[in-house]
Amino acid sequence: MRVLGIDPGYGIIGFGIIDSASYGNYNVVDYGVINTPKDKSIADRIQMIYDCMIKIIEEFKPDAMAVEELFFNTNITTGIKVAEARGVILLAGKKNNLPIYEYTPLQIKQALTGQGRAEKAQVQFMVKSILGLSAIPRPDDAADALAVAICQLQTNNLLTNNLV
Amino acid sequence: MRVLGIDPGYGIIGFGIIDSASYGNYNVVDYGVINTPKDKSIADRIQMIYDCMIKIIEEFKPDAMAVEELFFNTNITTGIKVAEARGVILLAGKKNNLPIYEYTPLQIKQALTGQGRAEKAQVQFMVKSILGLSAIPRPDDAADALAVAICQLQTNNLLTNNLV
Repeated sequence: MRVLGIDPGYGIIGFGIIDSASYGNYNVVDYGVINTPKDKSIADRIQMIYDCMIKIIEEFKPDAMAVEELFFNTNITTGIKVAEARGVILLAGKKNNLPIYEYTPLQIKQALTGQGRAEKAQVQFMVKSILGLSAIPRPDDAADALAVAICQLQTNNLLTNNLV
Repeated sequence: MRVLGIDPGYGIIGFGIIDSASYGNYNVVDYGVINTPKDKSIADRIQMIYDCMIKIIEEFKPDAMAVEELFFNTNITTGIKVAEARGVILLAGKKNNLPIYEYTPLQIKQALTGQGRAEKAQVQFMVKSILGLSAIPRPDDAADALAVAICQLQTNNLLTNNLV
């Protein structure tokens, strides 16, 4: 099974693709980020994100997509833009008939470290460790996207209620 | 000039299409709502909204799109879904090369009634009056979408900074 994990955003969107033949057996296919230019409008950036998502899906042909859920804290204005971008990320998955799974930050931390309150550094260390990499993937957004993909593979068949 | 006004949402999305040959001269082309079923996932509903938006744009061929801006008040969870849906609404405009304008609720009220703090009923009365209709358009979401289109036509060439 090939899973595409996504760390949503509108300036930087992380993606990570992992193959898994069996539980705990993971092979990183690719990871990276989509960057959108600050001097473009949100509508332009949304279109870029959608087009890049379509290219990634068409190139890597994942079997499923896993996307981190949003929580808004202090900056609602930024949050609205992230959610608008996340809408077109979901659409790109749907347009390619991918099953889409959503996980909260807490679920992702829990799946990777066993603790919902784990620090970011712990999660990133576990991404490196679980995937057998020589270093923590950079930038952070790519590592976070791989964490979402791992979460989906670890919890697959257990949390079918996350299918959206 | 033909403007497509949009009142964003994920359960009900209002749309209104108005032709205007000159300032204050308006002709309603069509209006209505896109409904998405409650028992579907947000990703499915987002896809429906996008597909309906594309159909509306292809059928009516507007010259521009005007979309109300979002403000989150108490219900952030609902707000995230509305923003996700708004993302694919913007994408539908971009994919058809439409200039997209955004207006705050305050700007819309101001444009229609002269008062930023106008009541909803006043705005709806002005939609009926400005468009020369025999009754207030129903449902409310369609009337709100027509208000956004009127706002764009009233402020066009004045507030070019709303182009997104």
